[in-house]
Amino acid sequence: MEEKDQKFTNLDQIGEFGLIDILTKDFESNNKSTVLSIGDDAAVIDNSKEKTLISTDMLVEGVHFDLSYFPLKHLGYKAVISSISDIYAMNGICNQITVSIAVSNRFKLESINELYSGIKVACKNYKVDLIGGDTTSSKKGLIISVTALGISHKNGFVARSGAEDNDLIVVSGNLGGAYLGLQVLEREKQVFLVNPNSKPDLSKYKNLVQRQLRPEARIDIIEFLHDSNVKPTSMIDISDGLSSEIIHICKSSKKGCNIYEDKIPISNLTTQTCNEFNLESTTVALSGGEDYELLFTIKQEDLKEIEKNPDLSIIGHINSKKKMNLVTKTGKNIAIKSMGWKSF
Amino acid sequence: MEEKDQKFTNLDQIGEFGLIDILTKDFESNNKSTVLSIGDDAAVIDNSKEKTLISTDMLVEGVHFDLSYFPLKHLGYKAVISSISDIYAMNGICNQITVSIAVSNRFKLESINELYSGIKVACKNYKVDLIGGDTTSSKKGLIISVTALGISHKNGFVARSGAEDNDLIVVSGNLGGAYLGLQVLEREKQVFLVNPNSKPDLSKYKNLVQRQLRPEARIDIIEFLHDSNVKPTSMIDISDGLSSEIIHICKSSKKGCNIYEDKIPISNLTTQTCNEFNLESTTVALSGGEDYELLFTIKQEDLKEIEKNPDLSIIGHINSKKKMNLVTKTGKNIAIKSMGWKSF
Repeated sequence: MEEKDQKFTNLDQIGEFGLIDILTKDFESNNKSTVLSIGDDAAVIDNSKEKTLISTDMLVEGVHFDLSYFPLKHLGYKAVISSISDIYAMNGICNQITVSIAVSNRFKLESINELYSGIKVACKNYKVDLIGGDTTSSKKGLIISVTALGISHKNGFVARSGAEDNDLIVVSGNLGGAYLGLQVLEREKQVFLVNPNSKPDLSKYKNLVQRQLRPEARIDIIEFLHDSNVKPTSMIDISDGLSSEIIHICKSSKKGCNIYEDKIPISNLTTQTCNEFNLESTTVALSGGEDYELLFTIKQEDLKEIEKNPDLSIIGHINSKKKMNLVTKTGKNIAIKSMGWKSF
Repeated sequence: MEEKDQKFTNLDQIGEFGLIDILTKDFESNNKSTVLSIGDDAAVIDNSKEKTLISTDMLVEGVHFDLSYFPLKHLGYKAVISSISDIYAMNGICNQITVSIAVSNRFKLESINELYSGIKVACKNYKVDLIGGDTTSSKKGLIISVTALGISHKNGFVARSGAEDNDLIVVSGNLGGAYLGLQVLEREKQVFLVNPNSKPDLSKYKNLVQRQLRPEARIDIIEFLHDSNVKPTSMIDISDGLSSEIIHICKSSKKGCNIYEDKIPISNLTTQTCNEFNLESTTVALSGGEDYELLFTIKQEDLKEIEKNPDLSIIGHINSKKKMNLVTKTGKNIAIKSMGWKSF
């Protein structure tokens, strides 16, 4: 990140308003609900009669990301993904985001442009308008705050609190990949620190590294649910790990659950790499964060529809006992504890 | 800020979710548009058919505030004020905010509680609901990001871009006070650094220091305009200084202006303190930021209504020439340049 080349532009040469102009000039608003975008005291959204969903996330350098292996373009993309994923987790459609950044003077215009190019790709891929933000300096490092705005699907938003007895617990995709991708990158960083001439070959771990550096949000699942006329009874996205999220659903819904270890979707690459790292794949799936998969509960009668989607797994069910159990492959009951990612 | 007393609680003892619970337990949602508040993936707002206004601000320790003289309770209050002021500047009503913070491990629970007690008082005073946010750690210092949400008054929102030829330029309150308050505090800090036993007497500067540490937002002006049936043609809040803001209005509206130096509202205390600091009061009013007063333009026919409010001053008018002039007390024309506060 230390850029000494003459062609790089210091931010103080441009000023805040100049920087905003440069960063946002290629962003277009395409959603009809965006009435007024960047350039005024506030942005204006017209969601007609629909309710507005709002979620906000803050990412801090050295806490949430390490720029020694995190390309800024990917970081911009991921910052958007992690924020809009929260809107999808409400059974919502995300239409707008605001992005605020604080940057230290070690960052040049070209670096911040890279960050915004990733934000732009994410906005394009997910049909989201960038409508505002704030741009300032920091004493140290890069801080990104993304607020996502949207509306709920026609059949209403889904909170964490609606799970009922005997509802089935469903998860999209597979779990643990993003965490393992991080382990791979951290290992290569250590190798690099010892031998700066080392050329890491990450091709074997490509899918894991991609899950960490350039994750996607499951808008496809929200669309599938909508098209299938299935409204989950509760929903959350997996940002802190399966155990942490199922606890949120159970506590909010005042219920318990049984999760079956052998039903938790884990990719072959994750299992292989877990062996290599001497990690237990179930633990990684339960506690590894940043998968941005959706975890939700459905009424039993909706099972037939859910089974049509090969990317959805039924991993357990809700019970009334307020006990949260993992049923292991050997049939033992283990209490599920939150071991999710902690920022403090 | 270095707290070594045993009674202080480290944040890692509580964890992120524990901290959120503690910080938000006393916040109640009172606006009927708040459908779902803190505790889910996203908050839900029902603005019925009204358009939604959104603005976001980021405050960084060492850039926007100095905790050696900024009490955390006041900082929380000011963070809310600076954000909701942007909603008022759209002719809006602010109903909700989200607050995200990143804090280094030098901050204890008790400090963050102080910050949130100020946020709470601001929410109460301005009838705003805290509906979400994010809480994380930072590598250095405190970062606060506040997003404000609201709706426009029945007669519609007011952008920066609607000023027309011959519109009158109006400003609320008086200008330069917050900047001078900062100068007073910075001077006392230097005195303290030389002599830690010094006891500063700030009573003489109370109003200035208050403008800096515990500003208010001009919801009263928005209500007055509404009650008077006056809809400004353009509006902005003064966060970066009068010159910077009138340039924003003129550029957005593709107009010019004449501002009359002798009409700019400056308090006696500001003038006196400017003399003491060897500063030119007009320069301070033009370039000093953080006053959070409203600057707006009105049609000439609305003058009678505006004159009824003693806290509003007519300081000039819009012209078609795209030249922005300050007409000095001696009758000279000087081009207005942005000398507002720069964060880079």
